[in-house]
Amino acid sequence: MKLILDAFGGDHAPEEIVKGGILALEADPALKLVLTGKGETLTGLLSAADPGIRARTEVVDAPEVITNDESPTEAVRAKKNSSLVRAFERLKEDPEVGGLVSAGSTGAVLTAGLFKLGRIRGVNRPALAPLLPTLTGGQVALVDCGANVDCKPLNLCQFALMGGAYVKAYCGVKEPRVALLSNGTEDKKGNELNKEAFPLLKALPGIRFVGNMEARELLSGDFDVAVTDGFAGNICLKSYEGMAKAMMTLLKEEMLSSFKNKMGAMLLKGGFKKVAKRMDYASNGGALLVGLTKVVVKSHGSSKAVTISSSLLQAKKLAESGMVDEIAANLAAAAAE
Amino acid sequence: MKLILDAFGGDHAPEEIVKGGILALEADPALKLVLTGKGETLTGLLSAADPGIRARTEVVDAPEVITNDESPTEAVRAKKNSSLVRAFERLKEDPEVGGLVSAGSTGAVLTAGLFKLGRIRGVNRPALAPLLPTLTGGQVALVDCGANVDCKPLNLCQFALMGGAYVKAYCGVKEPRVALLSNGTEDKKGNELNKEAFPLLKALPGIRFVGNMEARELLSGDFDVAVTDGFAGNICLKSYEGMAKAMMTLLKEEMLSSFKNKMGAMLLKGGFKKVAKRMDYASNGGALLVGLTKVVVKSHGSSKAVTISSSLLQAKKLAESGMVDEIAANLAAAAAE
Repeated sequence: MKLILDAFGGDHAPEEIVKGGILALEADPALKLVLTGKGETLTGLLSAADPGIRARTEVVDAPEVITNDESPTEAVRAKKNSSLVRAFERLKEDPEVGGLVSAGSTGAVLTAGLFKLGRIRGVNRPALAPLLPTLTGGQVALVDCGANVDCKPLNLCQFALMGGAYVKAYCGVKEPRVALLSNGTEDKKGNELNKEAFPLLKALPGIRFVGNMEARELLSGDFDVAVTDGFAGNICLKSYEGMAKAMMTLLKEEMLSSFKNKMGAMLLKGGFKKVAKRMDYASNGGALLVGLTKVVVKSHGSSKAVTISSSLLQAKKLAESGMVDEIAANLAAAAAE
Repeated sequence: MKLILDAFGGDHAPEEIVKGGILALEADPALKLVLTGKGETLTGLLSAADPGIRARTEVVDAPEVITNDESPTEAVRAKKNSSLVRAFERLKEDPEVGGLVSAGSTGAVLTAGLFKLGRIRGVNRPALAPLLPTLTGGQVALVDCGANVDCKPLNLCQFALMGGAYVKAYCGVKEPRVALLSNGTEDKKGNELNKEAFPLLKALPGIRFVGNMEARELLSGDFDVAVTDGFAGNICLKSYEGMAKAMMTLLKEEMLSSFKNKMGAMLLKGGFKKVAKRMDYASNGGALLVGLTKVVVKSHGSSKAVTISSSLLQAKKLAESGMVDEIAANLAAAAAE
């Protein structure tokens, strides 16, 4: 399986991105990588790797870089020689390549995904779908978490179908429990969008719709897919992130506040790290950009090597799983109803 | 200052509610309470209190109870003898009474507030505004967190003006920093609603609008008021709640996972409790229903005595602060522009 890595996207590009690529190649001998970016720099960075690893890499020289400050549409149009645009072009053209990973600007990845790669037939709007670890040891996909800030009920239905196919393919959940993120659990709760979407989701073939869910139940383990418009989804995701950060900050303060607490903290250090790591969804891989004709994983902008490696292995698993075909089939079945 | 306590609203009514009332009366000798609910039960529960405390209470017999399962509009209309409706009627009629606390159904409190009490002149939609503790030791008001799931830009502007007056009066913040909750910090970020509201907020006299904020920054201490529609606000609030619960669950698991961890947990127990308590916004008092002609505090449905007492003291402080007049003045000034 060959994947593409946008080696110049992300806060720690290109060093950490390339390191992450090498880590993934070391972890999976069946993986091959195409790295896009400044050719000389990449060749230099790759020279640190084992010759056996290097033999499974290819460098595509793309000297331009798209940054977070640029307008995504303009940048994707203007910077034809950027690491991101060249990555998407290769993804589209090369039948051997199954997927792409980028830690670059979310907006630019979305734009390039739409205009350089293209949507699965029947998909109106691709969506960003991160996987969050639940309290029962599973994962829940939050679809959409920011690609589409204004949605129609039809979009939410498609998010449900795509999210279902995603967790089926990636997490092995046979009948994903799909819920609608709302301001209460009762059927009649919700804003206008949700109220219109609710009966459509209920009638949708191919998913197991379990009704409305509250944001505080996201990690309960009772749901496999949480469907929402990208605005509310973004608020939800970042609120979870904000509270995790706040709790860790306060706990650290407490741990240093007395000798007794310092002793306790020393003993509990390992346990804390485990919890912090488990709740740090960003380091567990990337958010899938679901609805495109090939697998595209958007890794967190702050991704370091380990996260990039996770994102690559996630992309490989998804590319091999037949998820794209599953989504196409789900959408065709729903359209035929 | 006389306040009204809906003694039959909430999961732990009436015992914990009455206990909370007694606690507040003990804490503040200048407080008087009118309790509404089943007269005999209330008189019985109050007999446990000191005669000096009892002398500052009055019982209004209102034998009906409005539950969470009822349609708020129908319940408020039909149950004229309910603890909630009688409480609001007294609040409206009695010039001596400055405010009301209820832990009953949020929907019913909102409905009764609108139809039995009434809005401040110029306020289109009252809003639910909880105060959350920030990492820098202050508080931030989240307006709206669920009263209005579908909003117009004008509503968000009024939330800003009301929220500003709230934190001025209650937290003593002289020039409250008001931000718009969005999916990014850049000016152009947001859904349709936010994009329309942004320039209006920027031009609004009487508030210090500091731009868009991300949900993960809510507790940073950089903001005094976060403005949002009630749907996104509800998702935000409950996500913070969900992550706090998730972290505490995982930490507790870790603490029991080995002998070493158990030892550490014993030492750190006090510190943990402090953090859990600080992040448990529900126990710090209630959410203000801002925009009504008198102070109405909605205490969490699961409120026990201590929370009810906090909510009462919060209501008293607000009633004495002149916040309602401040809101009226803010709105009049904005309308005159």
